[in-house]
Amino acid sequence: MAHDLLHAYRSSLRAKIFRKLSSAGLDSLLVTDLPTIRWLTGFSGSYAKLLFAGDATAVLFTDFRYQEQVRRETSGIATVILKDALATELASGSFRLGDKMALQADHVTWHEMRQLSEKLGNREFSPVSSFFDEFREIKHVAELDRMRRAVELSESVLEAVIGMIGPGVTEIDLAAEITYGHRKLGAEGDSFEPIVAGGAHGAMPHAKPTAAEFEPGSLIVIDMGCVVDGYASDQTRTVAFGKVSDEQRQVYRIVREAQQLGIDAAKAGMAARDLDAEVRNFIAAAGYGEAFGHGLGHGVGVEVHEAPRVGTASVGALREGAVFTIEPGIYLPGRFGVRIEDMVTLGPDGAEPLQRFTKDLIEL
Amino acid sequence: MAHDLLHAYRSSLRAKIFRKLSSAGLDSLLVTDLPTIRWLTGFSGSYAKLLFAGDATAVLFTDFRYQEQVRRETSGIATVILKDALATELASGSFRLGDKMALQADHVTWHEMRQLSEKLGNREFSPVSSFFDEFREIKHVAELDRMRRAVELSESVLEAVIGMIGPGVTEIDLAAEITYGHRKLGAEGDSFEPIVAGGAHGAMPHAKPTAAEFEPGSLIVIDMGCVVDGYASDQTRTVAFGKVSDEQRQVYRIVREAQQLGIDAAKAGMAARDLDAEVRNFIAAAGYGEAFGHGLGHGVGVEVHEAPRVGTASVGALREGAVFTIEPGIYLPGRFGVRIEDMVTLGPDGAEPLQRFTKDLIEL
Repeated sequence: MAHDLLHAYRSSLRAKIFRKLSSAGLDSLLVTDLPTIRWLTGFSGSYAKLLFAGDATAVLFTDFRYQEQVRRETSGIATVILKDALATELASGSFRLGDKMALQADHVTWHEMRQLSEKLGNREFSPVSSFFDEFREIKHVAELDRMRRAVELSESVLEAVIGMIGPGVTEIDLAAEITYGHRKLGAEGDSFEPIVAGGAHGAMPHAKPTAAEFEPGSLIVIDMGCVVDGYASDQTRTVAFGKVSDEQRQVYRIVREAQQLGIDAAKAGMAARDLDAEVRNFIAAAGYGEAFGHGLGHGVGVEVHEAPRVGTASVGALREGAVFTIEPGIYLPGRFGVRIEDMVTLGPDGAEPLQRFTKDLIEL
Repeated sequence: MAHDLLHAYRSSLRAKIFRKLSSAGLDSLLVTDLPTIRWLTGFSGSYAKLLFAGDATAVLFTDFRYQEQVRRETSGIATVILKDALATELASGSFRLGDKMALQADHVTWHEMRQLSEKLGNREFSPVSSFFDEFREIKHVAELDRMRRAVELSESVLEAVIGMIGPGVTEIDLAAEITYGHRKLGAEGDSFEPIVAGGAHGAMPHAKPTAAEFEPGSLIVIDMGCVVDGYASDQTRTVAFGKVSDEQRQVYRIVREAQQLGIDAAKAGMAARDLDAEVRNFIAAAGYGEAFGHGLGHGVGVEVHEAPRVGTASVGALREGAVFTIEPGIYLPGRFGVRIEDMVTLGPDGAEPLQRFTKDLIEL
């Protein structure tokens, strides 16, 4: 049922893409990034190209390894199992490419570009970039359903791994348990390599798990997510192991309030940059302005980082139907860090978090 | 100690790259693929570009996230923490780029190419491809040491997970245990998503693990590897769960003999294609010619798939010092599959397998 819904939605998306191409004066478009292809067709193979041709037909190209899978995963779209190189197949005359053919400038290599030019030379190639963002940003109910399942699954794993923190346990141990838990509960996998960062490591927003054992009196940042049916989740909690100082508690309280402020302040139509500023100003007013060195959040969907970006350099407004993270942090180099992150969905009345996991400070 | 060895080796490699550039009439080269950069410098961050400049200096570019890590991981190489876009930095005049600048055609996007052309337009850009293969293919003793450790670690995990096979256990369960085991024993992670394929799934060489429980009387293909200190391993064993048929045993025996034949026949200097043919002919003579649909093997190093390729379309000879897999298989669609794979290192007297794990049929 949900599958039928999603197939119908994908078909309506492809119709929108054709309309956008036409109003941009482009005859055809070759899509070369896999997440966008999965979003538009459901196909999850490791080789795929998607052509929006001039006669309003969309054609999915893949290779012999995926003959069966492409049939199982897609619906209502023509598929071609490539026997030749893609450029050769495109030059066969079977596809209406027109004079102006668009390519994704960020997802085609110079080598591919040269091959296409050679085989399809007598036309103009137009670079497009962020072409799909406006559509990918707004989530359909069937997409939201998958993200909610990913969140729920990952929250169970978070609960389980917090219970494993103790003396002698390392960051790598916990990261391995997270990956294992996601897979065991049925996720396709992690949506990114889990971050487990205790003590001073927590002050590095992108710390890699190390063989360091957790030390009593430290805060531990756990940032994790999984993929369910092609859609990602992302969440962060910071927990205390042993007795932590008043300063650590105080910083935790500030980040928690900042994060709640972000959720409460988010409104459809506001500039993404203004939401970032509101939270950033709050943290600065609390005396930690220098200690929040990254953006407030990012969209989540078929990719764990996608539009919209919510940061100081964001342009554009937050739109109803978008799903993005709100994840302020305070990082004190050489000492400790705190980050709290939920995904939210933006409705007419504001933001609703997808996560339900407690944000009270857990003390182990 | 091993680190010093590897740093010295990397420095000698960079000198070779400069010599090759010079004899190819190229003034400079921008390296944009991360595995090659790690191999040449030791740096493992997620953003890196490496310039071989015209005055024979190599410069590694990364961003502020990796300020500390780049110092820790590299030795004897200039590093720049980028504040501007790379193209802008390159155009600053600080770097001798010369008139002919080489770029990796397969590892630079059309977008990056356009930026570079715009900022550095008054020169010729030359596409290079497979430029590093001849060097990467031959392994230094310190590289081999890392691969041996990766193999040893992954063999312990294989032994443990074979012990977990039983009624009610699924392919996904076992795959999750493999990933978990690799991490717990100290690997950086899997070198690729483990393949665990029971029964008819085993007939698909690239099967994804499913929630299917293992069925008595089936063969289970387990293909796995991990990364230790930047170097990959890769191995496959096929085991029997419950009583299997005479035909299954017979196919196992043929694959095992074919694999041993591949190890025995491999000689430095022979055409890679001839080694593939020797094994392929053996399988064909046994009556399963149609059932071995992929190449015999591939090189392994900082990437789990790299030069040399050993298949029907390979050009060039197997060289002393190369490390590659020998992995024949027989796949009977809808029924079962068998694959056996070791990595070998090619010495003056032939091939020596890195794996020691038994190739007798394990019956559970």
